[in-house]
Amino acid sequence: MNRIYAVGIGPGEERQLTIEAKEVLGRCSVVIGYTVYTDLIRTIFPDKKFISTPMKQEVARCEIAIEEAQKHGEVAMVCSGDAGVYGMASLLYEIGKNHSQVEIIVIPGITAAISGGAVLGAPLNHDFAVISLSDLLTPWETIERRIKAAAKGDFVICLYNPSSRKRHDYLKRACEYILEYKSPDIICGFVRNIGRRGEAKKLLTLKELADTEVDMFTTVYIGNNQTQDINGSMVTPRGYKNV
Amino acid sequence: MNRIYAVGIGPGEERQLTIEAKEVLGRCSVVIGYTVYTDLIRTIFPDKKFISTPMKQEVARCEIAIEEAQKHGEVAMVCSGDAGVYGMASLLYEIGKNHSQVEIIVIPGITAAISGGAVLGAPLNHDFAVISLSDLLTPWETIERRIKAAAKGDFVICLYNPSSRKRHDYLKRACEYILEYKSPDIICGFVRNIGRRGEAKKLLTLKELADTEVDMFTTVYIGNNQTQDINGSMVTPRGYKNV
Repeated sequence: MNRIYAVGIGPGEERQLTIEAKEVLGRCSVVIGYTVYTDLIRTIFPDKKFISTPMKQEVARCEIAIEEAQKHGEVAMVCSGDAGVYGMASLLYEIGKNHSQVEIIVIPGITAAISGGAVLGAPLNHDFAVISLSDLLTPWETIERRIKAAAKGDFVICLYNPSSRKRHDYLKRACEYILEYKSPDIICGFVRNIGRRGEAKKLLTLKELADTEVDMFTTVYIGNNQTQDINGSMVTPRGYKNV
Repeated sequence: MNRIYAVGIGPGEERQLTIEAKEVLGRCSVVIGYTVYTDLIRTIFPDKKFISTPMKQEVARCEIAIEEAQKHGEVAMVCSGDAGVYGMASLLYEIGKNHSQVEIIVIPGITAAISGGAVLGAPLNHDFAVISLSDLLTPWETIERRIKAAAKGDFVICLYNPSSRKRHDYLKRACEYILEYKSPDIICGFVRNIGRRGEAKKLLTLKELADTEVDMFTTVYIGNNQTQDINGSMVTPRGYKNV
């Protein structure tokens, strides 16, 4: 059997892997991925063959994974968080479409929305929307339309890729769209370096968030109209107390 | 230190726990939860004290957790999936607000959107919205408004609690709202009994989904306008192939 496991490794430390993900990685002779993630796995399994490619080499990375699976049987493609949330899983299916002898299996992992939510408290405890602010692969008009739709629906909103060197004002633009629909006093929060050294969190209002610069290692949460700051934790009630 | 760990156990089998969740459960002398979940943990740690309460006893369950933490130091409240996604984490913060000597820590887990997505392929590989169709705690008007907003924004939509004995037509109603904005040919999918015995998945169009009855153990996915059926897997491209 030729298989590629698309393995979500969570925020990055070994304890945030699922037991299944660790077992699968232990079984695969070759681990492919973006350099930062293969380096994390190397500390757990130093004896494997690792193949890493830099950013913007995603198609080549998937083609390598298919070749390696054809040669070695079972290989793993590692992604931070979950491979199916802004990760490589969909591209593996697209590239693998014409290689029916190679099976693709996704091993779920803890995506940043979930791991960052746990750091802040319980911000996603009711309906939520996840949006990436990166316009490298998505037209900004689509991103704008989704932010406005999510704000209008009063979803809790979780923003991935809120910033980069070239896009330092994107979070401000997103907040301005949201301010068309939500109160400036809505509780928001962000987490930097989730589950890694230097982890830091902050709670603030939507108005304050609009004037805050964050970096690309940050995940941002905008509450719904019920979200509260409970002793420093960001908490979106589900409604049990109203019954 | 008096602590309640709100532990997400994932879909239910031991291998879907994170290493951290298993360590934390191993350390706590008391495990509290809904009967179905404590029974799952009992098979891994048979020697602990388990306290379970039935459905609709959520406030009482959190009060018990606080009492137990005051008596025993570290206790765990287990939830399926992630404790912060339609789970008990937010209620623990609400009930714990006036018990500042009891610290609440959320240990992230694999929520159904992620575990079910992995079964289907990669449906959530671009911006997505998660909505519960249960109107026990949320007015139907809010649910309707969110479904329409998510459809208008062309989010991939993941539906939790799509059905119950009393709400057998809710999925149909949701699909009808979505059909106001999305094509009837949009690729959809659902997974029943994720990660458990009897796991089953199906891909179908939005029009077909509107005429399908599912049960309460099912998680439903409605694609965006890019979502594809690739050899039986539900795949939402991120756009790497267009660069």
